[in-house]
This record gives sequence, C-alpha cells and structure tokens, in this order.
Amino acid sequence: MKKSLLLFILSAGIVFSSCQNEKVSNNDYKDASLTIEERVEALLPKLSLEEKVAQMRIFHANIGVEADANGSLKLSEKVIEKLKLGIAGIKNPGEHMDPVSAAKFNNGLQKHIIENNRWGIPALFVTESYNGVDAAGSTRFGRPLTSAASFNPELVNRIWDVVGNEARLRGMHMCHSPEADLVRDPRFGRMSEAFGEDTYLTTQMVVNAIKGVQGNYEGLGKGTHIGAVAKHFAGYGQVLGGSNFAAIEISPRTLIDEIYPPFEAAVKEAKTLGIMASHGDINGIASHGNPELLTGVLRDQWGFEGYVVSDSNDIARLFYFMNVAESPEDAAQMGLEAGIDIDLYAEDSYAYLPEMVKKNPEVEKLIDRSVRRVLRTKFILGLFDNPYINIEDVKKGVRANSSLELAKESDLESIILLKNDNKTLPIDKNKTIKIALLGPLVTENTQTMFESVAGEQVKFVAEKGFHLTDEKGGAPKLLERDENAISKMVNMAKKSDVSILFLGGDEFTSKEAFFTSALGDRATIEPVGAQDELIEKIKALGKPVIVVLKHRRTLAINTISDKADAILDTWDLSEFGDESTAKIIFGEVSPSGKLPVTVPRSIGQMPFHYSMKEINYKKGYLFLEDGPLYPFGYGLSYSNFEYSDIKISNSEMTSGSEIEVSVTIKNTGKVKAKEVVQMYIKDVKGSVTRPDKELKGFEKIELNPGESKTVSFKITPDMLKFTGLKMEKVLEPGDYTVMIGTSSTDYKQTSFQLKK
Amino acid sequence: MKKSLLLFILSAGIVFSSCQNEKVSNNDYKDASLTIEERVEALLPKLSLEEKVAQMRIFHANIGVEADANGSLKLSEKVIEKLKLGIAGIKNPGEHMDPVSAAKFNNGLQKHIIENNRWGIPALFVTESYNGVDAAGSTRFGRPLTSAASFNPELVNRIWDVVGNEARLRGMHMCHSPEADLVRDPRFGRMSEAFGEDTYLTTQMVVNAIKGVQGNYEGLGKGTHIGAVAKHFAGYGQVLGGSNFAAIEISPRTLIDEIYPPFEAAVKEAKTLGIMASHGDINGIASHGNPELLTGVLRDQWGFEGYVVSDSNDIARLFYFMNVAESPEDAAQMGLEAGIDIDLYAEDSYAYLPEMVKKNPEVEKLIDRSVRRVLRTKFILGLFDNPYINIEDVKKGVRANSSLELAKESDLESIILLKNDNKTLPIDKNKTIKIALLGPLVTENTQTMFESVAGEQVKFVAEKGFHLTDEKGGAPKLLERDENAISKMVNMAKKSDVSILFLGGDEFTSKEAFFTSALGDRATIEPVGAQDELIEKIKALGKPVIVVLKHRRTLAINTISDKADAILDTWDLSEFGDESTAKIIFGEVSPSGKLPVTVPRSIGQMPFHYSMKEINYKKGYLFLEDGPLYPFGYGLSYSNFEYSDIKISNSEMTSGSEIEVSVTIKNTGKVKAKEVVQMYIKDVKGSVTRPDKELKGFEKIELNPGESKTVSFKITPDMLKFTGLKMEKVLEPGDYTVMIGTSSTDYKQTSFQLKK
Repeated sequence: MKKSLLLFILSAGIVFSSCQNEKVSNNDYKDASLTIEERVEALLPKLSLEEKVAQMRIFHANIGVEADANGSLKLSEKVIEKLKLGIAGIKNPGEHMDPVSAAKFNNGLQKHIIENNRWGIPALFVTESYNGVDAAGSTRFGRPLTSAASFNPELVNRIWDVVGNEARLRGMHMCHSPEADLVRDPRFGRMSEAFGEDTYLTTQMVVNAIKGVQGNYEGLGKGTHIGAVAKHFAGYGQVLGGSNFAAIEISPRTLIDEIYPPFEAAVKEAKTLGIMASHGDINGIASHGNPELLTGVLRDQWGFEGYVVSDSNDIARLFYFMNVAESPEDAAQMGLEAGIDIDLYAEDSYAYLPEMVKKNPEVEKLIDRSVRRVLRTKFILGLFDNPYINIEDVKKGVRANSSLELAKESDLESIILLKNDNKTLPIDKNKTIKIALLGPLVTENTQTMFESVAGEQVKFVAEKGFHLTDEKGGAPKLLERDENAISKMVNMAKKSDVSILFLGGDEFTSKEAFFTSALGDRATIEPVGAQDELIEKIKALGKPVIVVLKHRRTLAINTISDKADAILDTWDLSEFGDESTAKIIFGEVSPSGKLPVTVPRSIGQMPFHYSMKEINYKKGYLFLEDGPLYPFGYGLSYSNFEYSDIKISNSEMTSGSEIEVSVTIKNTGKVKAKEVVQMYIKDVKGSVTRPDKELKGFEKIELNPGESKTVSFKITPDMLKFTGLKMEKVLEPGDYTVMIGTSSTDYKQTSFQLKK
Repeated sequence: MKKSLLLFILSAGIVFSSCQNEKVSNNDYKDASLTIEERVEALLPKLSLEEKVAQMRIFHANIGVEADANGSLKLSEKVIEKLKLGIAGIKNPGEHMDPVSAAKFNNGLQKHIIENNRWGIPALFVTESYNGVDAAGSTRFGRPLTSAASFNPELVNRIWDVVGNEARLRGMHMCHSPEADLVRDPRFGRMSEAFGEDTYLTTQMVVNAIKGVQGNYEGLGKGTHIGAVAKHFAGYGQVLGGSNFAAIEISPRTLIDEIYPPFEAAVKEAKTLGIMASHGDINGIASHGNPELLTGVLRDQWGFEGYVVSDSNDIARLFYFMNVAESPEDAAQMGLEAGIDIDLYAEDSYAYLPEMVKKNPEVEKLIDRSVRRVLRTKFILGLFDNPYINIEDVKKGVRANSSLELAKESDLESIILLKNDNKTLPIDKNKTIKIALLGPLVTENTQTMFESVAGEQVKFVAEKGFHLTDEKGGAPKLLERDENAISKMVNMAKKSDVSILFLGGDEFTSKEAFFTSALGDRATIEPVGAQDELIEKIKALGKPVIVVLKHRRTLAINTISDKADAILDTWDLSEFGDESTAKIIFGEVSPSGKLPVTVPRSIGQMPFHYSMKEINYKKGYLFLEDGPLYPFGYGLSYSNFEYSDIKISNSEMTSGSEIEVSVTIKNTGKVKAKEVVQMYIKDVKGSVTRPDKELKGFEKIELNPGESKTVSFKITPDMLKFTGLKMEKVLEPGDYTVMIGTSSTDYKQTSFQLKK
C-alpha cells in the first residue's frame, strides 16, 4: 500500500514554467526564429489533454506500422486512430528494411503523422544501438564490452558517431542506448551490452558514446545524428544474483560513488537527450516510482533537462510485477510523479491519465511538465522544421567504407591477449603451415576470413564440431556430448601443425532474460558442453593450441587457461570479427586490448571486481587459489613495455591544487605496439572503508621498438572525493597511493599527501 | 581521514548520570542494601583514571593466567601487574580444566584479583558457548544451526539454561554467545554458529537462548547463570561473498527489517547483559566506530543498558585493518565515542585512554559512561557480594544426567529427513540385516553407538575410508582420491544389505577464517573429495543407500540427493550424535527437524533465501532447474500430516485489532510423530518491494496416528509492520496472504485485508 506523493512533489518546489505562457502563447510554435522554450510554450497550451498524453507514449511499430508489397506505408486502423492525437514516438519503424527503404518508409510515416494530428507534431522514431544501429543494413560493430576493452574512448566516440549518423539516415531520432550500467556479475545475461565493471572506464566510454551518437550535440539539430537515451537509471547492472528483474540491494554510498557517475557524466558532460529508468528497485524503492532518483538526483542535482522514458511496460509493472502500486492508475500516478515523461509500450498505464485528470486536475500540471520535455526534444532534433530524410544522403552515408574500416580498427584495438607462452603468437603468415580452425564458435566465414589474411603457404581446415545448445530461443537446452564431433576435430588437429580453437559461448548462452519464459542469465560460468574436453584432448597431441574466446559474459576459463599456449579474448567483435582475429594471429597488429572486467576463477568468488573495499581482499577461500584468474586492466602485447621513473610533481597537494604524476614507458620488444597506461589511486585511510584502488586515468599510446614515452596524469581534488560518513561528498586529507602500470595488479607506485 | 565525533556525541544529549554522584558518593558501594545504581555511583568516583580504564579491558587467560602442577594459580609478572588496577574481565580462565578444577582455579583467580586491586572489584570471567560451554568437561550440545532445525524454542531455552548453569559452576560470568546474526551464505565458514537464514526463527531462538543462559535474568544475581553477549552487531552474517572480514553492503531497509530484530529482541525481550560489535563495516561505516549503531540504535532506540564489547582486537583494527582511524589513539577514540565499553584483547587501543584524557579531559566522561556499564554488570551478577563458586555444587551440576538426556533429546528433534523413497527408513531394529557404515564422516564411535541402539540381529561393519582434507589447521588441503579406500568401501557395501553413508564436511572444510593465514570460507559448496563418486558406486550395487549428512555449512548435494534412497540431514549434533542418528534410523523416534536454511542447487544461485523480495523469484537461470534443492522449513516425517480447514477469524483487520488463523493437522500415518506447523505471511502490495513471504509463527506439535489437532496463530498489526518509503516503520492497509503448512513451499492459504 502506498500514499500519493503528489502533494510532496507539488510542494517540493518544482517549477512548471507556466510563467512563460502569457508571453509567447500568441506566437506560432512553427516560427523557427523563436527559441525552443518559446516554441514549446506556444504549442503546449494548444494541445487537448488527450493530445498531451499522446506526447507521453511510445508504441512499437509491430502493433501495426507495416509496409505493403511495394514498401509503402500500411497502417492498421488502430494505429491510424492513435496517430490522430499525435504520438511521442514509435519504436523501430522499418527496422527490417535496408537503409534507403527504411528512410523512404519513415519519411512516409512521419508525413502521415504530421498531416494527421491537429498541430502537425512530428514523432520520434526510436531504435537501439549497442553494436551499431539495431536495424538491417547497418554497420555492425563490436559490443560495448568489446569496445571497452580498447580502452580508447576516442575510438568509441567515432564508432557512435557512425551509429548516430547511420540511424538518422534511416529516419531514426533517438536510440535507447548506451548502457551506463556497471556490469560486475558474469551471471547477468546482458553484461556485454555495457562497458564493464569500472566506474571511470564506463564513464569515459558512455560520455564518448553519447557525444558520438549525438554528433557532439550539434548533430541533433543539423539532422545528422540522433539523441541518446542513457540507461538504466539506476543500478540495473546490480540485480541480485545477476538475475534479470531481481531486486537490487546496494549500499547508498556505493550507489552514489560507483553507479551514478556514468549517468551524471551522461547528463552534465555529454548532454544526453534522454534517460531510461531501470526495471528494478533500489533497496526496495521501484525506480519507475522513485521521485528522489528521477527528479531529485537527475534533475535537481544534475540539472537534466531531457526526458525520462520508462523501460518496456515498466510503469504498468509497478502494479502487476513490482507490486508497489495499488492499481494501473496508481502505477501511472507513481510514474508521473516520479518523473517518467514517456511510457514505453504499455497499453494500460499513461492511457489512464486523461481519466485521472478528471478526478484530480492537479495531475495535468505533471502532464504538462512531461510534455514540455518531449516537445523540447523534438524541437532540439529539428523535427518541426526538417522532419524528412534526404534519400540521396542515405546511400552515401550508411555502411561507408570508412565505417567498415572503423569496425575493423575497433576490433584490432579490442582483442585481448590473455596468454602467449613461448611466443606462440603471432604466426608467420608466410610460413608453410597447416592450421586447424576448430570448435563450436567457428562460423561459416571463419576459414574464408583467415585465408584472406594469411599468405598462400598457410593451409586451413575448419570444423565447428558441435553446437553448444539446441539454439532454441526462450530457454535453450544444452546438448549431449558428441563423441564423433570431438574425435573428428581431434583427428583434424592431429593432421595439422597448429590448432586454433574457437571456444566460449554462443548467443544462446548469454542473453537478455526477458520477462516471459526466455532465460539468459546463468548460475555457472564455466564454458558449457565439451569445450574443456576438446582442448584437453587436442593439447594432449603435443602441438601448439591457440584459443580464440568468443563470448558475451565473463567465463571462468580455468581449463582453457591451463591448457592453451595462447589465448585471444575477443568477446563479441564486429561483423569482421574473424578477419580481425586473423590479423592479430598473423601479426599484422599487436594486440592492445585490456580486460574491462575481472575474470574470476569461480562464480563462488562473486562479488568480485578489482575496486572493492580493501578489506574484501584480506581473506581467501579454502581450496581455491587466491585472486582473479585474470585481473582488470590485464592484456599482453607482442611487444614488451618497461615502466620506469614514476615521478610526482609534488608529494603534497591541497584542496585547491593539482599535481601531476608521470611514468616512462619503453617498448623493449621487437614490434610496434600499443599499450594502455593505467593510473589507479588508493585512499590509504578514510572516514569510511575505502576501495582497494580505483582507476582514475588511462592513456593508450603507441611505441615503436626501442621507443620511450613519458605519460603524465593530472590528479585533481575532484578525483579524490567520495561520499563520507554523513552522506556528503568529502575530500579527506591524508595519504594517497598512486599506481601506474599495465594492469590493476602490475604497476609502479608513488604517493602523496593531501593537506588540510 | 576522519573527523572527531566527540563533539557530536557530547551534543547529542547523552546523559552521563553524574547527577547521582552527590547523593550516593558517601555511601559504601559494598553495601548490598543500596540499589545497583547507587552502588555504581558510590564506587566510580573512587577509581583513578587508570583503574577506570582497567574496567574497560578484557585480556585472554593465555597471556599468563596458568595453573601449576597442583592446579593452583600461577600468574605471570605481567598479569600480576595488570591486576593491581583491577580488570573488566578475563577470557577463558581454566578452560582446559575439568569443571571442579576450573571452579577452584577460578575462585583462586578471583580472590587474587579482589585482594589485589584497591577497591576489591571482582572480574568477569568470560567464555563462549555456541554448543555448550567452550571448556573441558561441559555437556556438548548440537550447534545453533542444528538446534534451530528443531524449530523448538523451548528446547533451545532448556539447552542454554544448562549451558548457563554449567558455565557459572566453573566460575564463568559471561559468554560471548549467542550469535544473533542471520546466516544466508553457505560460503561463510561460521554459518553453523548461528540459527539460520530467517529473522523470525533466529529471533525466537536467540531470545530463548539468552533467557536460558541468563536463567531468565534471575539466575544472574542468584549466581546460577551467566550473562549473554549477543553478537555480532550488526550484519556480520552478511559479509560479501561469505568471506570473513569482507565488507558488508546491505540495503538500509533490509538491515532494519531483517538483521536488527534478533538483536532488538535480545535487548528488549531477553535482556541480554552484553552486545558484541561486528568485525565488519555496514555500507562503509566500521561497526566498531559507528555511534549511530552502537548508541543511536542500540541504546537510544532500544534502551540497551548493558555493555558493548569489541570483537577480538577490533578497536585497534579500526586503525590497522579497516583503515578508518588515523592512529591507534584515534581508533580508541572512535571506539569509545561509538559506544564500545570493553576492549577485547587489544594491547594497543584502550590502553591509550589515560594519555588521551590528559590531552582532552572530556574523554573521561565517555570513560565514565562505559565503566558505569561494566560495574553495573558486575553488581547484577552479584560478584561484589558472592564472588566465589561453591565447589560442592559443581559436581552435581555439571554433566548432570538430565543435561546429557537433553543433548540427546535435542538431537532427536533436530535431525531432518530430506528424502525417504520407498520408506527406506526406518529400519526394523530387530530384523536380521547387515549394515555397512561407510564414509569420511564415520567416527571411532559410530559403530558402537549404532550397536547400542539396534537389536542383536543387526550386524554392522564400519569404515571411514578416506579423510576429506589433510586436517591441518590454517589452510587445510584436499587429499588425492584414494582408489583403495573407495574399493574397500564398495566391497563392504556389496557384502551388506544396506549401506549408510556418512557424508558431508568435516570441521576442516567449514570453520572460522581467522585473520591470520587460517581459511574457513569456501567458494564452492559441493561435497569435497570422492564423496559423490562413493555414493554413485555404492548406489550402482542396487541396494538401499541411506545418507547421513554431517556438515557445518549448507552443501549443494545434487548427486547425493539424486542417488540416495533416504537422507538424514544431521548438521552437527551433540556428543551423542551418532547414537541419536541411530535412534532415528531404527525408528525409535520419527524425525521432526526442518531446514532452518534454504538448500541451493548451486552457489551460483546466491543470494538465495526463501524470504527475498517477490521479484527475485520471477526469473530462473539457463541450464539450471528452478528453485532450491530443498526449501526452507522443509523436513519429512515417518508419518504423514494432512493439513485442512484453514480458517481465519476475520477477513478484515484494523491497526487496533488482531485476528486468528487456524488449520487442522491430522496424522494420517502409522506412527506417533512431531510436526512443525509454519505460518508465513505475504504482504501482497507495498509502498516498497516486499518479501515473497515471511515466517511469522510456528508451533511444534505431536500427534498419534489418526489424531488431529487444530493449531491457531494470532496475527497482530506488529507482525505486519516494515520500514516504508520514508525509512519509518509503517503498517500499510491492503491485502495479505496467510500460508500455513509443512514448509515454506507446501501450505494451505487464506487471506485478509488490513483496513485503514
């Protein structure tokens, strides 16, 4: 049972800028010479209550936005009826069409919408884009967790710049991406959709993704880019047990210091147009009904001016799933009061708002608050002035060569070399050698892609062997061990000089666990099926075994790690993934990816990330080697880097000063290579228990053999702040350790003292 | 870095009842006709600062409290010097002596102390007692988690009554027990020291344990019982990853609603004399330096008047382990301000207090506050008036027949029947049958104890086969598989009619992970060694296989559960454990224990207890059967119970009324048996996400075959309160479901509505 929060909210000093009404109400909202605020205020009063509420709903195209045989618009009666009131947006219109057809189709759809609602208000067409626009014919990049491994925010910026442009070119205006969640639990099926376990790394990547997809904000109005919707606010990555839809229990201090920063930066630095709320609760309070979160933190503290959209059906779910609302109407009231401006999909939630206004006219003020935000977004995107795509631009713009090259470039920076005993890698591409490409993650194109990279002297055979699951959607099942497939692969390995095993997990072993019967989270993180057996048998042949890991969740690869001579951790690369992997294997480029997550030895080590409280590392487990299998920030190179001369500009710092720490890195190996130089800081003593260390800076550099470079990092007081005893941000005098190195566990260190 | 909290505390309105000084300062504290408060106020001003601080320290007897060859007191110079100032207490004096010798020894020690400090202040002699007094010659009961399985608080009360009496008889005055922590993570090595995962069950058990050990409080002054120290306040069971010393991150709402209640009841209902603080932090704030916890919640909210003792060295650890204090002195200041009255063990913490008073005289007020509490405890225990044990009482009192019988009775109520296919159990004790007692948990006495129960027609062979670990303290290692041992046992099984396998974990596979190199927590919870192989091979013989599980942590017994025909889960029984198990196996008594914890299928399901938020159960994992292997509250009987006629006295309730729910239970089986009737309540809708269900009542009844009984439970408004949106206790109108049944997943249900 719950009490209405309306009075609380109304009395909390939220300004419904109605004061502007008089000034501009006679101006025409179509006049592009007015400011956006003036145009919003000119338009809003014209709208009927029903029209306002229509601006607070997004429906999915699959309810009746179709194309006929010629690709022309065919709307269901239901949709035609809906659109007479206008609509906030439509999700995924034309998603299965090629970009040009989609652009034409969406132009037609937009035209219909504009011409069929009284005020000619355009709609937002919404997509998702975690690895490229989620629609046919787009450039397919690696997933966020993959690109996070590049530790190259500028690269991520360029990827999302392409994504934003390709999306706009097919008629989209917003994407429900990127994820600003921290993913720290490999059981969670969606972990590859986010940028890893670390607050700082994720923040850098999210800011660059949003700036990219929004064309540095300028691309929005120019019509070259789309608006971002950072999600899922807040704590969605922290579902208990890595189980989608489970409760989220988190220290309020951790929430503020570790979970909020990527969102805060998305708002303040990257100026994201949208924020999506989290499915879940936080310590009992459902995020979709949480005014302190969605209004207090997001708007009052951070100054967010865009719109907040619900996750799929989640306002209605306050009633029927979270059980914190008494009725669908109550759920709508809660969502509205909390600050959710747009109801995604639900047929039975914000649909009740007009009725609710009749009972309580005060509700319309909250509706106005939300509608302003939605209209404002449409003005920012230039949709009132330039609602259509120029079809000529589409062909040139989508899948441009530069975009495809970027996908490849990104792969090459993201592949992580976990192990390379006896310099197994790289393989000389001009050597006469027989290579067997084996295992369940071999694809139809693997051999072709490898052949395209290697010289003619390299001969390949390829065999997938077995599938990991029955590949049924919903709840896939593991398959029985296939003796014949294993024997066949072992025989192929026997006849080859080197085996490259493609192991890990397919898309069925790690995916979003939708609410229906679909499963995607896992309780165990060992590689499934006979993969361990396969490497054991092939290793027993006594020839080099290289493992290419493909996967969407962290796996406890104890056996693989033990048996393989070399391991390339590729996560989920672009559409050119196997080609990129081949380039690394044959030494065209030295690998430079670093782990954006901790690789545990056992799921029993959870929670386990590198930046936990220092006290978490004091005690190991019985019968288990201490520490991670591979630590955060780890990744080898074909070259070697020597770190030396760590220097600090001043061993004392004040709350008003900055200091600089530098280190010299020398490429002592034989090939040109990139290295991610990482800076971690540890607050030695705190008023509250403090993290063991925290990443506070990194820089990716490239060095020729023998070349040296000095890398400097600024340390500012802001970097040292945290939420102290009284739940306020504090800067505490005392000793700090600075570690600069090649991973979170291999570094040089120095220290400084923060003075009062 | 931290700021002093002293000013905060002094200004927070804590009353240092110095107003009483004048009134009583001329009275003699030795005058037993005065009230305790008067005596405390008479004594306190006489003490020098050093003498006061001595009343705030406990040292361990092992630093120099020894016995000579005749059992007479032999004190080191260091100890003699210390005792001149008096002392709060000494831990474990005479622990390795038989009770009579210990009593004599402790009389001598007390005499020395009284006669050698200026004011003749006696010391508290302190022990622990989770399964009987932790000293030689005491009755050894089952561990708390074992006795929790009895679901019989009255039985627990009687056990702890014996414990309190046996402890007092050997000269003890306080015990650092019971644990009021919730243990929800089977990785935690100490889980068997507490009463399980549930708040309500733990609360009942803790209250009864404390009332028992304190002789209903009256036993304290009478000299027949000892004071309890409920521990570890608060949240110690919630260490991340089940790893001792790790950080504790918990929803503030969960902390209040689930973790606090056993402590609150320990204070308010059971009147515990002491509370021990938790090693850990809570969401960043170290409990030993947390005034809101140790003073605000414990004293201001709950009215606790006893003393708070640190856990071992934990005040000093604020500095050198938790890193929240700047120096040892700062740690002492933090502990003092937080409300820790006694420093356990540390040589370098409260020892600094006299020096600190010189720098800041205000500190003495806090010292006085603590010394009052300690002196008050000594007066309550009658130590100023009757400091010595009457040796004649000791022989009669310790290990009395009734106590030994109670240990057996308790075992019989605590053994849980998890599986009993084809009525494998009980075995007719008069049948001609050959039984093999096999496996690593067989002890030297197993066969003898089984023979003492079975008739002469039953023939036994016994073989331990293999050890699970190398049984080295510190960090034991697993042993190599022993083929010969397995073969030997399989052969013995082959020659027998029935095999009883003693499986689980020994004391080395689950124990307290002390700070030094000692390990005791585990990342995996499968039975270690070749136990699964053993049961598979013996099961393959086609004869009945009964498993007796002995263990100190929950184990994921998937294979055992699959292969065994019958499983008795005995956890860690009394010194008569195998005899009790034999009595159950041969049907002297029907088992009636119920699981006080959820048994998971995989450690990957953590966190996993029955009372999590409803939303935690919406989604399963890929490749894993849903739900627990065995649910909380589960346990079979040799009989059958039919639940029917669930009735509610009123389907509506108000905040001022109570209702009653009843159900009829019929013994439809063939033997007399006990059953634990359990009532769970679910709040269907809440302002915050609510538990799936919560145990709110249980009653253990005994029924003859064919007999019926109607069991009623009152439902009061207090039972329905929880911490609402605004962090205040609320009672929320709406629908509630009431479930009464035989486990948390097998019940009849009804419902009621709480009206506004």
